[in-house]
Amino acid sequence: MRTEFEFISDLKTRYGLKHVGDDCSVLPKDCDTDMVVTADMLVESVDFRPDWTTPESLGHKALAVSLSDIAAMGAVPEWAMVSLAMPEELWNSGSIEQFYEGWFVLAREYGVELVGGDISRTPGPLVIDSIVGGNVARGRAILRSGAIPGDSIYVTGSLGGAAGGLALLEAGQKDIDSARYLYRRQLKPQPQLVLANELQQLGLTTAMIDVSDGFSSDLTHICKASGVGARIYSNLLPIDIGLQLHFSHEDSLQMALNGGEDFELIFTSREQDIRLSEKHTITQIGEITASVGIIELISDGKCSILESKGYRHF
Amino acid sequence: MRTEFEFISDLKTRYGLKHVGDDCSVLPKDCDTDMVVTADMLVESVDFRPDWTTPESLGHKALAVSLSDIAAMGAVPEWAMVSLAMPEELWNSGSIEQFYEGWFVLAREYGVELVGGDISRTPGPLVIDSIVGGNVARGRAILRSGAIPGDSIYVTGSLGGAAGGLALLEAGQKDIDSARYLYRRQLKPQPQLVLANELQQLGLTTAMIDVSDGFSSDLTHICKASGVGARIYSNLLPIDIGLQLHFSHEDSLQMALNGGEDFELIFTSREQDIRLSEKHTITQIGEITASVGIIELISDGKCSILESKGYRHF
Repeated sequence: MRTEFEFISDLKTRYGLKHVGDDCSVLPKDCDTDMVVTADMLVESVDFRPDWTTPESLGHKALAVSLSDIAAMGAVPEWAMVSLAMPEELWNSGSIEQFYEGWFVLAREYGVELVGGDISRTPGPLVIDSIVGGNVARGRAILRSGAIPGDSIYVTGSLGGAAGGLALLEAGQKDIDSARYLYRRQLKPQPQLVLANELQQLGLTTAMIDVSDGFSSDLTHICKASGVGARIYSNLLPIDIGLQLHFSHEDSLQMALNGGEDFELIFTSREQDIRLSEKHTITQIGEITASVGIIELISDGKCSILESKGYRHF
Repeated sequence: MRTEFEFISDLKTRYGLKHVGDDCSVLPKDCDTDMVVTADMLVESVDFRPDWTTPESLGHKALAVSLSDIAAMGAVPEWAMVSLAMPEELWNSGSIEQFYEGWFVLAREYGVELVGGDISRTPGPLVIDSIVGGNVARGRAILRSGAIPGDSIYVTGSLGGAAGGLALLEAGQKDIDSARYLYRRQLKPQPQLVLANELQQLGLTTAMIDVSDGFSSDLTHICKASGVGARIYSNLLPIDIGLQLHFSHEDSLQMALNGGEDFELIFTSREQDIRLSEKHTITQIGEITASVGIIELISDGKCSILESKGYRHF
């Protein structure tokens, strides 16, 4: 069967959609500003498990995944809506208050205003649709499509931690003290808005995406949109050091490459040496090539092809 | 338990939300324009039944309900997003193409562009979140809160047809030739954008809402938001004449008062005699009073209190 990415690509062609295919849609707002807007649907037992998280963390994550899309455009979030399809027992439990409490703590941190949404009853699992709108200077949104051969490839923070947390939770190991950090990477991700804003100000970034489906998939999205390829050096990848205690190096590497949900940023730049303020960690991990759609992974001097193996719904 | 309306009202108070509580949120866009934005969630077996409708009609209705919210602000729709939580068997059936086909036929009619959305797998029922954004001249959005005692109350088109269609479908009578019009009122509603735009141009409307939950509930929303009451004359209500063939007068009246989903507009105006272009039907059905929160229903010279009995999820 076709993937959701193929389906969306078909829709774009059939209906001539011009604003679909990046982390956010970019729409003209006024003479100086573009609006960006994004929607992210989270489904219970597919995207989250109530027994692994708290309502507060779920509220936080529902907003964080959309804020991460706003960050990936180099934009600043402004307003949000939340639509909920809610099982009756959950409505009666009072946990919806805690959901919004977690949502608002994060919203306040970034000055995001809740302006609307919808609530419907459902006989099925909880479904959350998170919608966020924001602003970016006109024509200055950072798209997936601007990378050119020779650009350096950077990633923020570290990779694989969220997948490590998920693997432990899935294995029933949900109460290990030394894994609290990894659980947090999975359950309470931090959107990279401050770092993205700094990059936007520098104006050196040619393409950007957030790590949601998984590094290999998300870098593939940049390569396809830009009509380029990439070469990644395995030894340069910032594998989350929190993984060492619980996983082999090979498993950790796989989590960093394909795990997803780290909500870090992958970006490209002509600059070889980008300097951000001290609190931010960025790592140069490779370069953009002219081999369209091909990602080479260099490990121990050998080259293999990195397949796109991140998360897919279909 | 509290209703969803009470819950939303609590959220507004607790978090000081300024842009929540109308058919759309109104946000500043540029010097001349405000943006309006709305989200509507439709859940299979709660808001629709796949065996009663077609994927095309469902695509149409998902967009229509949000366009109706845009109409209720006197705004013009511009862009939209669709988020889907989709069961695997439905993804594999190919009916998603037909869903979008129905969606786009309506979208083209009103110049609405699909700019984004999300697709997630779900182990539960199909859930659709429909998001639409639009424009209205700055400060000219028609709110629920502008009605004042003495205003006339108008309704567009006719009421109760959608509820009549639903009642027949729920009774298993889904293939009656003489009921095709009623099925259509339920399954393929038409948003009143053209009429709303004409009202907006006239500038005579003090408050407006669309009939989604049901006339009694929706008029109550206007009364609460405006801090007023209303008096409605039962004999003036434009009960859908399509109901006559299938329902008693009393049942038809109840459907017109409480049925919902007609996606007509209720509006108020100081003008006693509003004239729109010939293709539009509007009916003056009563007046706004100073009896805060109370809707009087005058039938055969007797006055009763009309309770808010429209659809509620919780």
